[in-house]
Amino acid sequence: MKPSLPQGTRDFNAEVIRRRRFILDTIKEVFELYGFEPLETPAMENLETLMGKYGDEGDKLIFKILNNGLDNPAKRANIIKSFEKILDGKNEPAITERALRYDLTIPFARYVAMNFAQLTMPYKRYQMQPVWRADRPQKGRYREFYQCDADIAGTTSLMSDAELALIYCKVFEKLNIDVEVKINSRKILSALAEACDATDKFNIITAAIDKLDKIGIKKVKEELQQRELNETQISIIEKYLSIGGTNDEKIIRAKKLFEQNETAKKGIEEIEFLLKRTSQIIVDFTLARGLNYYTGIIYEVKAKNVSIGSIGGGGRYDDLTGLFGLPNIPGVGISFGVDRIYDVMTELNLFPETINTSTKVLFFNLGEQESLAAFTAMQTLRNNGISCELFYETAKMDKQFKYANKKNIAYAIIIGSRELEQQTCIIKDLQKEEQQTIKIKDLLSYFDK
Amino acid sequence: MKPSLPQGTRDFNAEVIRRRRFILDTIKEVFELYGFEPLETPAMENLETLMGKYGDEGDKLIFKILNNGLDNPAKRANIIKSFEKILDGKNEPAITERALRYDLTIPFARYVAMNFAQLTMPYKRYQMQPVWRADRPQKGRYREFYQCDADIAGTTSLMSDAELALIYCKVFEKLNIDVEVKINSRKILSALAEACDATDKFNIITAAIDKLDKIGIKKVKEELQQRELNETQISIIEKYLSIGGTNDEKIIRAKKLFEQNETAKKGIEEIEFLLKRTSQIIVDFTLARGLNYYTGIIYEVKAKNVSIGSIGGGGRYDDLTGLFGLPNIPGVGISFGVDRIYDVMTELNLFPETINTSTKVLFFNLGEQESLAAFTAMQTLRNNGISCELFYETAKMDKQFKYANKKNIAYAIIIGSRELEQQTCIIKDLQKEEQQTIKIKDLLSYFDK
Repeated sequence: MKPSLPQGTRDFNAEVIRRRRFILDTIKEVFELYGFEPLETPAMENLETLMGKYGDEGDKLIFKILNNGLDNPAKRANIIKSFEKILDGKNEPAITERALRYDLTIPFARYVAMNFAQLTMPYKRYQMQPVWRADRPQKGRYREFYQCDADIAGTTSLMSDAELALIYCKVFEKLNIDVEVKINSRKILSALAEACDATDKFNIITAAIDKLDKIGIKKVKEELQQRELNETQISIIEKYLSIGGTNDEKIIRAKKLFEQNETAKKGIEEIEFLLKRTSQIIVDFTLARGLNYYTGIIYEVKAKNVSIGSIGGGGRYDDLTGLFGLPNIPGVGISFGVDRIYDVMTELNLFPETINTSTKVLFFNLGEQESLAAFTAMQTLRNNGISCELFYETAKMDKQFKYANKKNIAYAIIIGSRELEQQTCIIKDLQKEEQQTIKIKDLLSYFDK
Repeated sequence: MKPSLPQGTRDFNAEVIRRRRFILDTIKEVFELYGFEPLETPAMENLETLMGKYGDEGDKLIFKILNNGLDNPAKRANIIKSFEKILDGKNEPAITERALRYDLTIPFARYVAMNFAQLTMPYKRYQMQPVWRADRPQKGRYREFYQCDADIAGTTSLMSDAELALIYCKVFEKLNIDVEVKINSRKILSALAEACDATDKFNIITAAIDKLDKIGIKKVKEELQQRELNETQISIIEKYLSIGGTNDEKIIRAKKLFEQNETAKKGIEEIEFLLKRTSQIIVDFTLARGLNYYTGIIYEVKAKNVSIGSIGGGGRYDDLTGLFGLPNIPGVGISFGVDRIYDVMTELNLFPETINTSTKVLFFNLGEQESLAAFTAMQTLRNNGISCELFYETAKMDKQFKYANKKNIAYAIIIGSRELEQQTCIIKDLQKEEQQTIKIKDLLSYFDK
């Protein structure tokens, strides 16, 4: 049998894991500086927890788990009937009652609803776990991938919104990625629909605006026309989308455009609140976010100097847990696109050199007694936090150097018969190609210096 | 809808995650000191990679994933036929072709077979990931749980076996758990079967010995009798199982018992090799390990002072990747029972106090201008690695103290209108119940001291 991996899944080797850990640890560190607490939920959720939460398209992409113990002869006919219902698109607990996590938001909502009484509100949680989607695999799109979210549940305070924008700035500063953290408020988009006298077409307008980046203003206008917005309406939208300049200039122009509109006023206040707390964010009125459940501030992060989609996004929503029987819990959250961040950092060569060191020292194995002395010396180093290996068998020097080289090991320590006699060892710095002979008992202080 | 979790799965809250991380980070640190590299494999494997690898019982406990896109009317009859085959216990790629990881060893073997040409041999990998089993959930047994393995593939060198024993000792020393790391060699058990003239009953003998701990010598003898071993044979086994004393005494007695038996000689040499490199291990000839693929040194770790099963185990095996078309790759590996280690540490109260701190400082929110000053001060602390929060709304002191208390926050910083005017703040050490007033600009140096 020739082994293979399921389509759209990946093994991660040591080099990739170290780079991914560098990203995840950086994000984690910032989340914790901001008072967020970790949460982990199971890979499997009850099917009913997930179904109907991601739209019809989403439902189709959920991986369902076959129940075990189906081989019951007495129930065979019933089981087949249940299966036929599944083929008709129904959920049948007799065949499948569990599914794989599809995102981190629904499990978070489920957790808050189940544990509300015990939680300290507002509840600030972060979560970094894989999710699974039966999407068609393609470049940069996988069936198993990590999500990395921070959400604050249980407060409408704009402080939360401001903090999340600051987290974006801080994380990408630490990762050394030059980004634009863009914000807008969905309230301003609502005001736009009001100004156009087209509140019934709010979703159409935001959906069209959301595509501006990709298709350009001309096609956006065409789409709006097709969706039966008239010329006056389209010209207001175009005027809105053309708002440019500095953050302050944009706000002045928006205030003028919407004049006394109360919804716009609230939206602009939200943005001003954030700007007062960080100057690093960019107001972008063309930002819309596809997801219709956002109601306030929305975020999007783009990397400069690379042509890749957004590497982060999020926003405020009004009702996190209503679907699970707990109404009126507002929330705001952001998400990091770990796979894309990885790609950006690889392309721009941003990973620090230091993260790719594994073993620091290789002790050569040059005979039974020699290797026993090496073993003892090695344990002293390991006990002092220096990662070491002893070559696994007595072999030619050449072979042992090759191993050190392949594993990118920094130092070789050689104890041959002469060294053993004199209780010395040869230390080779494999990068600098220097060597010196020292007493075995002085090894630790050599590395301590 | 009242939300719930699938049976046998768990949410992990911040407190539990911090404790689990403490365990996993400790193990990881030691693995890396010993030159092991991380590997991560996908949660989903091809069904054929997993089926037939864990015995008939194991096959039944594998979670299979339903294929997506089953709702094809044209193929409906065929799909139902395939489903019927599944009910007959066959694998049908039309319905399910993927399954959830059941352990870490088979994915490791699959990875080595797929990537052999690129790997530096011997390949020392560690892996810490969840696995899923459709076992009946009960106390301490879950359907989703973490495994934590280190294996060395591609060498028969006993150095590897010795290192793994040392890793066990080091990890539990660091976790402050008092343990017995027991070893034996399956070669000595083979010699026992030879000495009984019952090599055909090797598996029966080891299976019975494996139960000694639980059922006692009397029942072990009964079981051997039932499996048709005669009195002479049973008395040899009993004599073998009664070997006691220090490690040295045990070895002398084993040498005497097996005299010139070549297999026993090899097994005893293996054990002596390990003893020369660590005095912390305990030779235990009654150790058998249930799994029949072990061929050399076997390990088991038990915690002293708690009545819980083994918290670690492993051994040497001859053929890791033969099933995947790559023969003759020997291996040796150990596994840590993370859930049980967690239970032992909880019972013995071994988790350090310090791991349960989250946010260090809570800034009180006492008005718009006050909170803006607090916000700025907070950002300075955060930028210097101190985790802080600002209370999310202007509220009574009482409410803010409660929040600090619930989240176990160490310091409260209060900036009211008077403080704002004087550019000072009150710092309360909430554990010591002390307070002092300092300049806001001196806050960082307060925490630096």
